[in-house]
Amino acid sequence: MSHTGLTSGLPAWSTDPGELARVSVDRSGVAPDGLPDLVVFAQSVRDVRRTVSYAASRGVPVVPRGAGSGVAGGAVAGAGEIVLDLSGLDRIADLRPDDALAVVEPGVITADLDAAAHPHGLRYAPDPASAAFSTIGGNIATNAGGLRCVKYGVTRDAVLAVDAVLGDGSLVSTGRRTVKGVTGYDLTGLLVGSEGTLGVVVGATLRLSPLPTTTATAAAFFATADDAVAAVTSLQRRGLRPSTAELLDQATLRAIDDAQGTALHTRGEVFLLLQTDGYGAEAELAEAERLLRPSATHLETTTDPETAARLVAVRRAALPAVERYGRVLIEDIAVPRSRIAESITAVGDIARRTGVRIVVFAHAGDGNLHPIVVADSAPPERVDEAVAAIFEHALAVGGTLTGEHGVGTLKRPWLADELGEPVLDLHRRLKSVFDPAGILNPGKAIR
Amino acid sequence: MSHTGLTSGLPAWSTDPGELARVSVDRSGVAPDGLPDLVVFAQSVRDVRRTVSYAASRGVPVVPRGAGSGVAGGAVAGAGEIVLDLSGLDRIADLRPDDALAVVEPGVITADLDAAAHPHGLRYAPDPASAAFSTIGGNIATNAGGLRCVKYGVTRDAVLAVDAVLGDGSLVSTGRRTVKGVTGYDLTGLLVGSEGTLGVVVGATLRLSPLPTTTATAAAFFATADDAVAAVTSLQRRGLRPSTAELLDQATLRAIDDAQGTALHTRGEVFLLLQTDGYGAEAELAEAERLLRPSATHLETTTDPETAARLVAVRRAALPAVERYGRVLIEDIAVPRSRIAESITAVGDIARRTGVRIVVFAHAGDGNLHPIVVADSAPPERVDEAVAAIFEHALAVGGTLTGEHGVGTLKRPWLADELGEPVLDLHRRLKSVFDPAGILNPGKAIR
Ligand SMILES: Cc1cc2nc3c(=O)[nH]c(=O)nc-3n(C[C@H](O)[C@H](O)[C@H](O)COP(=O)(O)OP(=O)(O)OC[C@H]3O[C@@H](n4cnc5c(N)ncnc54)[C@H](O)[C@@H]3O)c2cc1C
Ligand SMILES: Cc1cc2nc3c(=O)[nH]c(=O)nc-3n(C[C@H](O)[C@H](O)[C@H](O)COP(=O)(O)OP(=O)(O)OC[C@H]3O[C@@H](n4cnc5c(N)ncnc54)[C@H](O)[C@@H]3O)c2cc1C
Repeated sequence: MSHTGLTSGLPAWSTDPGELARVSVDRSGVAPDGLPDLVVFAQSVRDVRRTVSYAASRGVPVVPRGAGSGVAGGAVAGAGEIVLDLSGLDRIADLRPDDALAVVEPGVITADLDAAAHPHGLRYAPDPASAAFSTIGGNIATNAGGLRCVKYGVTRDAVLAVDAVLGDGSLVSTGRRTVKGVTGYDLTGLLVGSEGTLGVVVGATLRLSPLPTTTATAAAFFATADDAVAAVTSLQRRGLRPSTAELLDQATLRAIDDAQGTALHTRGEVFLLLQTDGYGAEAELAEAERLLRPSATHLETTTDPETAARLVAVRRAALPAVERYGRVLIEDIAVPRSRIAESITAVGDIARRTGVRIVVFAHAGDGNLHPIVVADSAPPERVDEAVAAIFEHALAVGGTLTGEHGVGTLKRPWLADELGEPVLDLHRRLKSVFDPAGILNPGKAIR
Repeated sequence: MSHTGLTSGLPAWSTDPGELARVSVDRSGVAPDGLPDLVVFAQSVRDVRRTVSYAASRGVPVVPRGAGSGVAGGAVAGAGEIVLDLSGLDRIADLRPDDALAVVEPGVITADLDAAAHPHGLRYAPDPASAAFSTIGGNIATNAGGLRCVKYGVTRDAVLAVDAVLGDGSLVSTGRRTVKGVTGYDLTGLLVGSEGTLGVVVGATLRLSPLPTTTATAAAFFATADDAVAAVTSLQRRGLRPSTAELLDQATLRAIDDAQGTALHTRGEVFLLLQTDGYGAEAELAEAERLLRPSATHLETTTDPETAARLVAVRRAALPAVERYGRVLIEDIAVPRSRIAESITAVGDIARRTGVRIVVFAHAGDGNLHPIVVADSAPPERVDEAVAAIFEHALAVGGTLTGEHGVGTLKRPWLADELGEPVLDLHRRLKSVFDPAGILNPGKAIR
């Protein structure tokens, strides 16, 4: 469809097929259904309102887009759709050290905000592994998590206020500049994680937090996932609050060893990276060491930044190492804490049964597992079978389809299994309040 | 109106005027408009669904009620209304130490849940000063805060899942048992703080957290509110995470001295109670001491539980001491951190200007001020003027009408000033999705 009614007077847009192909996909591997009609590169809130109003009046779907780093197909756009690229709205409008907050546009890169806070002794706590390229708008839309969120919370915990353009083109401001507040419903929290289906985020007020004074690091290996998870649980039950608690399974260790020529997998079946921070960091790590020592097959602790960097690098190396096997699907189930070990074992069983190569990373402190499925390691129907089995396992143990990546298009088939039809119906009615014409990212997140 | 259609077969209800009078008020001092028609003492989720369905079919308002300890008039009920008392649904259905969660009915008393968690080395972190008598359902409906929430979060942060009866009598389950999860919209967070206007909470899954190993306590006095607030801010900017940071102004200190025959007010204009906890508690308090020492007029620190209890008792004595002056209105504004000192001064100015006796307690760590207005200390129109001036001040400095108590009926006149008409309208449309007949606590929280 031609959209001259929209583009006349709009400063930046494109119908170039190369550009359209680029903005039609994210990092999920989901193939769009044809090319979108148009991409609008928003330069202002006015551009966003104008695009959304136009789309509402014509019934044309709008797909909001940050950096396109999503792994659930949330930003995938096809024929008949308009891509609304927010990456140009990238100003940090205000940074208030005394109030420990920042006011930003949605296209700000996550790591850029974090870096801007550092000179003030502050940081932006949510740290998705994609921080170097993901946008704050995308983080808000997916409620992104990261390594630190076991102690410092996910994106939702950092968002105080949001400016959003609703499906009729109107602009609303929700939330406040105060840490606490209960006037009205929590519309801010509702917009967070709504994957562009309730409103286009055009601004946000974010909490910053102090840079920790000290960080202490441990790397431990265990003979079984059971031992590793039991160790993490025992720490948490003793009141330790690790700032990082990451597990890698043996398949991951082997991938890293293959890539680096190391022999990590000989140290144990499971690797645990643990960090503590703040004034109690060393006391906390000493206690952790006491608790981990009896069951660990190998244990190393440090407060030296260089040694710590070497230990953290093991975790960092995991995804690139696995990607050497081929294109990966990054799954993202979360399970109750007591079921983590069982879930790691279950994923291993699924891999063996289906013949699909799958490794597991886990944010162990909060039960969030990333089974990394190597897409080309088996025939497509086997891969589908493995992915379905992972989701079914998650739901069977009282878990969820997605801990931090979102439902996007990929996980919609299992949505009703998790939410139930009545709750899903409530979602639809709620969406219609925010987006009466149904043009905001239709077919994503809910169904 | 007679409600025999409802009461036939309902196990527990009353139309006794004494009972009706008791359940028609909360602790706000708001006078109901006549007596409610009926009170239903729910014994089961079925009773709740039946009451709400009946009310929806007749267009009769239903006022959910926990312990009636609210201070915003949220549970106040008048003629033509049905009170739905949830206090009988008071079972802790499940407590899972390994998953650090509890599944409870709404009528469970906050402190009872906390106590039930202790034998497992766990606690329920949100600790409103009313914990000994408030219910979890009321805490959820108001998103209650407490002293520990500066470190451990408010009620919303502890609620993983909710079972709620919507305005058509249907039962929905939102949320999950996992710490993280982004499937679907955050309906759980939306129900938290909705003051009974979106659904009746009939069950909840709550996060528990480990009892801290160590707690360290400081009591400090300062010559000015500026000094005290600057001290707290400097701690936070250094990355300290106090578990309590409570301020009392000099009017409060005088009230305590009057009640106890002490001379606290001679030590300084403002009192600060500070606690740190966890593995770093002592290191953190030592650093706090270093930061507070230069500006404090008096400073005492301890890790001895008995000495700590004596210092904490000063904070505890505050409300009872002020209540000796007469009936109090507990206000609850929150302001950006950098405006706290200014706000304490502003409230003092308002007290002087209007001739109303007002003292201030503050959860200083998160900018939540409780101006305590002695209702009979001046003519009613003066009291109204003072309260209005406090709200106007809060909004003028970018703050909010209520940090943790809710809007109830009391704060509705200022609601549009804070939210703006478009957002308020969005609230109304959202309510109509959850409560199409408009029978759930109408006239409360929104307008
Ligand atoms: C290597 C790698 C590592 C990753 N690590 C993590 C991780 O640790 N934790 C994690 O949570 N995720 C991770 N991700 C996933 C991804 O980076 C996050 O989901 C991120 O939040 C997406 O941001 P984005 O700007 O790329 O959004 P996009 O991919 O452009 O969009 C994501 C969704 O948000 C919507 N959206 C984007 N901007 C807006 C806006 N302004 N208003 C409304 N809706 C909008 C889109 O419509 C889409 O539904 C990783 C991805 C990769 C490739
Ligand atoms: C001395 C004193 C100290 C206090 N200290 C604090 C404090 O430190 N922090 C704080 O936040 N508050 C405090 N409060 C206020 C009050 O205790 C809280 O608001 C508490 O959460 C109310 O719980 P409740 O069970 O008494 O609820 P109620 O007063 O019965 O009801 C409060 C609101 O919740 C709704 N409601 C109750 N139960 C349900 C349910 N199951 N489903 C849906 N809606 C429901 C009611 O309709 C009403 O709108 C204090 C009050 C007093 C008297």
